[in-house]
Amino acid sequence: MPADIPVIVIAPDSFKGSLDAPAVCAAIAQGLARVWPDADLRACPMADGGEGTLDAVLSRGGTRMTRTVAGASGVPCSAACGVVASADGPIAVIEIAQVVGITEPEGMGVPVAERSTTGIGALIRQLLDEGIRRFMIGLGGSSTNDGGAGMLTALGLRLADAHGRVVAPTPAGLATLAAIEAADLDPRLADSSITIMSDVNNPLNGERGATAIFGPQKGVRADEVASLDATIARFAALAERAVGRSAAANAGAGAAGGLGFALQLVGGSFHSGAEVVAGLIGLDAALAGADWALTGEGRSDAQTLLRKAPFVVAERARAQRVPVTLLSGAVDARALPELDRVFAGCFALPAGPATLADCIAGAGALLADRAEQIARVWAAARR
Amino acid sequence: MPADIPVIVIAPDSFKGSLDAPAVCAAIAQGLARVWPDADLRACPMADGGEGTLDAVLSRGGTRMTRTVAGASGVPCSAACGVVASADGPIAVIEIAQVVGITEPEGMGVPVAERSTTGIGALIRQLLDEGIRRFMIGLGGSSTNDGGAGMLTALGLRLADAHGRVVAPTPAGLATLAAIEAADLDPRLADSSITIMSDVNNPLNGERGATAIFGPQKGVRADEVASLDATIARFAALAERAVGRSAAANAGAGAAGGLGFALQLVGGSFHSGAEVVAGLIGLDAALAGADWALTGEGRSDAQTLLRKAPFVVAERARAQRVPVTLLSGAVDARALPELDRVFAGCFALPAGPATLADCIAGAGALLADRAEQIARVWAAARR
Repeated sequence: MPADIPVIVIAPDSFKGSLDAPAVCAAIAQGLARVWPDADLRACPMADGGEGTLDAVLSRGGTRMTRTVAGASGVPCSAACGVVASADGPIAVIEIAQVVGITEPEGMGVPVAERSTTGIGALIRQLLDEGIRRFMIGLGGSSTNDGGAGMLTALGLRLADAHGRVVAPTPAGLATLAAIEAADLDPRLADSSITIMSDVNNPLNGERGATAIFGPQKGVRADEVASLDATIARFAALAERAVGRSAAANAGAGAAGGLGFALQLVGGSFHSGAEVVAGLIGLDAALAGADWALTGEGRSDAQTLLRKAPFVVAERARAQRVPVTLLSGAVDARALPELDRVFAGCFALPAGPATLADCIAGAGALLADRAEQIARVWAAARR
Repeated sequence: MPADIPVIVIAPDSFKGSLDAPAVCAAIAQGLARVWPDADLRACPMADGGEGTLDAVLSRGGTRMTRTVAGASGVPCSAACGVVASADGPIAVIEIAQVVGITEPEGMGVPVAERSTTGIGALIRQLLDEGIRRFMIGLGGSSTNDGGAGMLTALGLRLADAHGRVVAPTPAGLATLAAIEAADLDPRLADSSITIMSDVNNPLNGERGATAIFGPQKGVRADEVASLDATIARFAALAERAVGRSAAANAGAGAAGGLGFALQLVGGSFHSGAEVVAGLIGLDAALAGADWALTGEGRSDAQTLLRKAPFVVAERARAQRVPVTLLSGAVDARALPELDRVFAGCFALPAGPATLADCIAGAGALLADRAEQIARVWAAARR
């Protein structure tokens, strides 16, 4: 039995809609400190490659910076990204939602047919210019459905119509696409390592493809899906031939409106976002010698076990024999039998009947209280 | 550190409006058994002297019986009571709400001016006839406001008007009261021990008295309070003189519409209901050698620390160095700093946003889940 003052790792995902992961860590730490003022609390905010990934990674070190590139609509935007050191050189951490996000002010005002990912390509190019050769790119929250054509053209791919005229890398432009030339594709990509963080495993096209599944929420009308899907498929086939690699049928090619395809086409490989973040923030090192870990997320259910952040934390903790307790905004009671196999106790925010709005508005205080109460049980059991 | 298979005392009050205390015990035990199928679970349903006291006491032994006596309205009712063995002879356990309760079907249909506690006196008399000399009487939930006159007349007190005519032991009858004769008061009362279980400490009369404070919820109109209070005060003064003992100014005399007065007048003494129940169910013996205890109630707040059942459980557990965790329907967050001094963790039912109706309807399943999850933390901490 370790000493009375415990070593506790706090590794939650964000509580979407209320608190980002660093704020969740702070609230849990506040509650634990009421029980153990001198505890060794190791805050490791987690993320799944989507929104909040950058904040989570940078909370453990690295440099935040901004670069001005085109947003989805073409209007310049100031995109945050990060650089963290590693033994193999600096790693750039990019959230594509920072550039072409569904919350980008201009992006959603322009029809999806006119939106493009050129800003993502421009950002990668700037970072290549700055000497970066390792990229960890979080997909998720995109407003685009261009098959990644915008990104690829910004990196040197040339699109032309039947008359040899340049074609815009947008769904509208791709409708007239006839030829693709890859000779000027940035050669530095071949020397780069691109890690794609996403839990989406859809292919680029077809009934499970980007356009059919994610297009409607970006504004693709039902009667446009088939023709747009065919446009993207033709683009992909030409791009694959030009680059000499296939990717459209790969799992994840349909992520972020086809950025998953385009990034794989230039050598990127898919990884669980939570796994990558766990690596970047040094979760294993934090767990070494810990007595206990707390994780959580906005809502936990059977999906949690599909490699969501709390599951990844639990798996890495289990490897070091550290028990992990789940503290989420809500826990689906039906999933408890499965969650029980992974977590040493699953808890939710409310201290009594409460509305969702109450839980969101009071999340910080509720989290601190709940963490404290769980810690009191732990402390009593260790006496 | 004890063996891996823990000894756990489960000693909750009822969750009013959803589960009685034995059902709360069963639900918690179900949850704990999912973690420790072989645990030594000691169910000790608690009560505070009010509704549920009889069930709680009889769940640990003793005999349940029913006796037919007059309800508050005079209509005969079948009242449950219990007898438990003790070293000093059998103890009768009475809940006055079984006879003159606010849920008595007929009682509330008759004006409070016509309601009487004669059935309580008749029940005591029957039990005296059966040889009982120890009584533990839970006040609470009465529909009467007769100053206990009904009970006392059933035990031999005689009430008369100015013309020597018998006066009914109701608020209406007492209005013409002129004289009281105690010569025929049952002499066996003097040989009896009467423990009154109540947390009410109001005096019989005045602005903090039974009529002013509790009368309105029994149907006393605001414009009737002063005259009824004066009627009860005159009755009490005459009764005190006749019996040769004073009680009206005592704390608790105002409990149960003045039954607190009448029972003290015949030698009864007030005790915390939860303390008495803890004694009757052998809580201390159950706690001996236990590793952990769980208690709870429908809602916990600062009032809990005023000797409510969970507090009494915590105090007795503390004496034996057994940590106690609170698991209630809801926990007032503002009271946590105080509750934390007593309980090793305070938890509520919901696993996410939930309405009060959800919590009440699902109380059993939620309790089992919550107990299980808390136990998983305990088990992880003990590894």
